[in-house]
Amino acid sequence: MHRINQGKLESKSKVPVRNAQDLSLAYSPGVAEPCKEIYEDKNKVYEYTMKGNMVAVVSDGTAVLGLGNIGPEAALPVMEGKAVLFKSFAGVDAFPICLNTTEVDKIIETVKLLEPTFGGVNLEDIAAPNCFVIEERLKKETNIPVFHDDQHGTAIVTAAGLVNALKIIKKSMSEIKVVINGAGAAGIAIIKLLNRFGVKDIIMCDSKGAIFEGRPYGMNDVKAQVAAFTNRNKQEGSLQDVLVGADVFIGVSVAGALTKEMVQSMKENAVIFAMANPDPEIMPEEAKQAGAKVIGTGRSDYPNQVNNVLAFPGIFRGALDVRATHINEEMKKAAVQAIASLVSDEQLSEDYVIPAPFDERVAPAVAAAVAKAAMETGVARINVDPKKVEEKTRRLAVIGKETE
Amino acid sequence: MHRINQGKLESKSKVPVRNAQDLSLAYSPGVAEPCKEIYEDKNKVYEYTMKGNMVAVVSDGTAVLGLGNIGPEAALPVMEGKAVLFKSFAGVDAFPICLNTTEVDKIIETVKLLEPTFGGVNLEDIAAPNCFVIEERLKKETNIPVFHDDQHGTAIVTAAGLVNALKIIKKSMSEIKVVINGAGAAGIAIIKLLNRFGVKDIIMCDSKGAIFEGRPYGMNDVKAQVAAFTNRNKQEGSLQDVLVGADVFIGVSVAGALTKEMVQSMKENAVIFAMANPDPEIMPEEAKQAGAKVIGTGRSDYPNQVNNVLAFPGIFRGALDVRATHINEEMKKAAVQAIASLVSDEQLSEDYVIPAPFDERVAPAVAAAVAKAAMETGVARINVDPKKVEEKTRRLAVIGKETE
Repeated sequence: MHRINQGKLESKSKVPVRNAQDLSLAYSPGVAEPCKEIYEDKNKVYEYTMKGNMVAVVSDGTAVLGLGNIGPEAALPVMEGKAVLFKSFAGVDAFPICLNTTEVDKIIETVKLLEPTFGGVNLEDIAAPNCFVIEERLKKETNIPVFHDDQHGTAIVTAAGLVNALKIIKKSMSEIKVVINGAGAAGIAIIKLLNRFGVKDIIMCDSKGAIFEGRPYGMNDVKAQVAAFTNRNKQEGSLQDVLVGADVFIGVSVAGALTKEMVQSMKENAVIFAMANPDPEIMPEEAKQAGAKVIGTGRSDYPNQVNNVLAFPGIFRGALDVRATHINEEMKKAAVQAIASLVSDEQLSEDYVIPAPFDERVAPAVAAAVAKAAMETGVARINVDPKKVEEKTRRLAVIGKETE
Repeated sequence: MHRINQGKLESKSKVPVRNAQDLSLAYSPGVAEPCKEIYEDKNKVYEYTMKGNMVAVVSDGTAVLGLGNIGPEAALPVMEGKAVLFKSFAGVDAFPICLNTTEVDKIIETVKLLEPTFGGVNLEDIAAPNCFVIEERLKKETNIPVFHDDQHGTAIVTAAGLVNALKIIKKSMSEIKVVINGAGAAGIAIIKLLNRFGVKDIIMCDSKGAIFEGRPYGMNDVKAQVAAFTNRNKQEGSLQDVLVGADVFIGVSVAGALTKEMVQSMKENAVIFAMANPDPEIMPEEAKQAGAKVIGTGRSDYPNQVNNVLAFPGIFRGALDVRATHINEEMKKAAVQAIASLVSDEQLSEDYVIPAPFDERVAPAVAAAVAKAAMETGVARINVDPKKVEEKTRRLAVIGKETE
């Protein structure tokens, strides 16, 4: 499938070029008119060009799927695939940019130099901790939305699942104890987002066990940041040690990291998001047997799939439609609530806390909520009725529809 | 037209994403397979990804149409239009890259960092003399074809017109005197290409008059290069002075630079390519009255339009299809001959020395000739029957066909 078409993505003209008349409109001399308008007012680049609907999918190929550092060429099939998902789920044009460098400064500078062409940047499969630095600096140094999907996409969908799971176990964010295993890009983003949702008792583990403030081994800047607002009792020990009495386990680590015994040591009706790929930290059957109530994984063959495709297409659709300068925390929280709210109270069950990836309602709802949040928090350049954003997303998406 | 669709270019999926099965093939986990194959053998990026059919249209916005240095945002409509032409005339996918810098080193580094994603680079609307440095260095420092269309596209089509014009006036390249007015990107490329076609008596003029070796004013590196192989008698003076007795005038300068009197001072049956845009150095009617035999311009409303669209789509099609590492001089000469040869001896006339821009035979013929020349000169990575290249180009082009 990847070979038969020489890849999965192509460029396509929106205008006909059949004859000299077409040519003189699409190109010289007609094209001089939009050029002059944009030269007079740079904001018009959003009206007259593809920029306002075009996202760069940027990778250095250092953390591709579970394959690791395979380089920019080998990463290209993934970035093409990502671009295809942007288009299919929310009508967002996207283009892969696989960079021949792994240097933080060069990646940042290149993306900044590309800013005139793109309305947004989706960072993808860039290894931690570089991914944190690159995202933070680009957010400060550009005026278009920059979003590292491996961090925030996963965090947003996980948080949406947790919002609904807590309805089932009848607990609130402020009273639960959460343990996150894995201090990579996704884990860090999840812990930050849950903190903003009011989770207070939260511990992150890496391969060396619980992270606590002042831990003298295996720390880096990002872990130190995490330690500053988590594990306030400075609990030491292994995952097994700190998991005792927890309400929620979130795994972004490796297959088999969670045992039945460990689940049994958690509170009754535990919530488990075991998202290691392709094999989760614990298989759902085992977690169930050990007493877990709600179980989510990254897999499509089990209930409650945590799939980023529920988040990033709608998030960029909403951000682009109001010409947002950034994707801020309020926009992410709005996406969480939009995803969670699509599971009605009647449908809600332990096997249905997250909408399915191909639920056609998701991207339109996320786009509208994100656009609204952007306008309310002052990062939107223009105002658009969220209903219009929702309708547009529904119209442009092709999932569930027949393709040519 | 440019506003109604929010630009002229979009990304498009070549594969369906309608359900979970589609998703698992186009994206995770299925996409891991081509990634692994490319990781094992980097050349497979040409088989499994869009790279082999994708050209970057790179500009810094410093010399856009006749508008000058209008910046990267205002240049974007032109680069989108160029991408549309690539696709429409030869099925080449192309993507605009408008860079937020005018520094030579930064432009070069950025293009090099983008190399994994693209099968070729079309430099566009970059001001002289930076365009010469950027192209030369990128040709040395990358392994994909780099082609500055403002130079070579114009040179190739002009040379094709001259090949046929000389048949009419029954002279050979080695016996004519050519004067070129304008020492910008196109003029420099034309003079170099004509030199390779065997023109010996050739003088270039800039705004200060004839360029000669050792001229003590208004020189730069590129003009010094030109002076080293042209104007061997070191003739000084204005355009008017050196044009006396010339067979051919080539203008890439400004409207009105050529007067009737100047044409009258040339040899009988003079050939004039007056390509200033939108108004030529002399209007064809006037040149005719002054005794010129063959007249070409950049305009679509007069005969013999010198339009780059006759060259670049087929050149890249041919280069990409054999995975050429470079576009070398032999490939350019092959393009010249292919374009010229489409005007049969029976059709040849003073009003028809260059095929029309929408002549559907051109891109396929150019692609086949360029692919053949690439294979013969050792810059092709794979061998492909030129007939196949021709057929493919014909199949992929949409000019003259109905679009959706």
